[in-house]
Amino acid sequence: MKLLALDSSGNVASVAVTEDDRLIGEYTVDHGKTHSQTLLPMLDEVKKMIELDLSSVDAIAIAAGPGSFTGLRIGSATAKGLAEALNKPIVEVPTVEALAFNMYGYDGLICPIMDARRNQVYAGLYRFEEDPDTEEGYRMLTVKEQFVGDFGELLAEIEAMQTKVVFLGDAVALHKETIKDTLHVPFGFAPANCNRQHAACVAALGRHLLLQGKSVAAGEHKPIYLRLSQAERERAERERAEREDGAH
Amino acid sequence: MKLLALDSSGNVASVAVTEDDRLIGEYTVDHGKTHSQTLLPMLDEVKKMIELDLSSVDAIAIAAGPGSFTGLRIGSATAKGLAEALNKPIVEVPTVEALAFNMYGYDGLICPIMDARRNQVYAGLYRFEEDPDTEEGYRMLTVKEQFVGDFGELLAEIEAMQTKVVFLGDAVALHKETIKDTLHVPFGFAPANCNRQHAACVAALGRHLLLQGKSVAAGEHKPIYLRLSQAERERAERERAEREDGAH
Repeated sequence: MKLLALDSSGNVASVAVTEDDRLIGEYTVDHGKTHSQTLLPMLDEVKKMIELDLSSVDAIAIAAGPGSFTGLRIGSATAKGLAEALNKPIVEVPTVEALAFNMYGYDGLICPIMDARRNQVYAGLYRFEEDPDTEEGYRMLTVKEQFVGDFGELLAEIEAMQTKVVFLGDAVALHKETIKDTLHVPFGFAPANCNRQHAACVAALGRHLLLQGKSVAAGEHKPIYLRLSQAERERAERERAEREDGAH
Repeated sequence: MKLLALDSSGNVASVAVTEDDRLIGEYTVDHGKTHSQTLLPMLDEVKKMIELDLSSVDAIAIAAGPGSFTGLRIGSATAKGLAEALNKPIVEVPTVEALAFNMYGYDGLICPIMDARRNQVYAGLYRFEEDPDTEEGYRMLTVKEQFVGDFGELLAEIEAMQTKVVFLGDAVALHKETIKDTLHVPFGFAPANCNRQHAACVAALGRHLLLQGKSVAAGEHKPIYLRLSQAERERAERERAEREDGAH
């Protein structure tokens, strides 16, 4: 099974092609350029390097959100365009789960944290369980579904679980000192090779989803924003203020 | 600390640039092209995409071997050329250790296996230990130094250790059935995102080595072959045969 995977949910832009359990090509950049300047040129570059016939892929796997609104829209639009043109399904992989998959086989809590601005994080909690019935020997379980919220509250939950934990994601730098000052359970931070988005993780998880028949048609796919955009929030606030004015 | 890392030890060609614990760019291909066609064009592509001034890197980290003789020579020659031109040190990262680093934080034995032809593997055994004194919370320990040898003997050693184990590397496909038929300890296989060479792992380990002052000048660097090349073996056999003829 061949998958083309894209992740532009955060500062990272990443493109990968996998065939079964083999990564044929991956290109990942974390450089502050907008994804509209990176994602498609990177895909084109990888395509040429591995002589990929796009029509040979079984599906397009996309880091479906949460994440940066602009990043998600660029990723989703690209995936939709490809899927529509190639007549292939889209596999929607939750961004935070794909991040957690970087820590394959880790024997404790995995806590990806992405900066969601306004003092919030996109986060979730995951762990791996030995499962001899799977091809790989492990499967990833969701302890706490991806959400947007306060990091302090999440830390309190983790502390209460009394389990070792590893953190990764772009919000680690923001919260490292708080983690060190707060947690009494053993904790670690993922290193450079596995602490950010990798489209290979989107592909690896996407493969499991596709094998379970979980895919959508190009037209059905929508990013998972988890909260309103700034424009939507402002409109909602304006409308509420107008309603309150009207009620007086 | 900024590192440029290269890995062309196996079928994979991989280039990465890291700054401290952040991966700025990585390009990885496993497509059967010779590394002389991929490695430098990939470096050039990444360099442009992340607008890298090569003179800003602190060192060149290289997957120093073992591995394919030709692959190692291309990687080492490239690293030497870069290091010489830029006047930067080379950090020699053992290939099998860099592979094992894919499984950061795994709580069991990590066993990378690379096909060494002639029914042998390049392999080693590693594990991670919690270490609150390190920045990351874990450090990787060598249980069995990288070596070239018989995979069956290694399996027997693993079985005797009575510890769960995860396998990765290009020789997994060759030995998967033997592993399944032989081992009684729990085992797993790393998925597509972390089962092959990644230059980001070379960079992450290389950073630790460089912080410990472990680097060499361009002129001093030599690949770690672990065994004689075919040409050298044939010459040694010819010379032995000649000596034996002479003794009669």
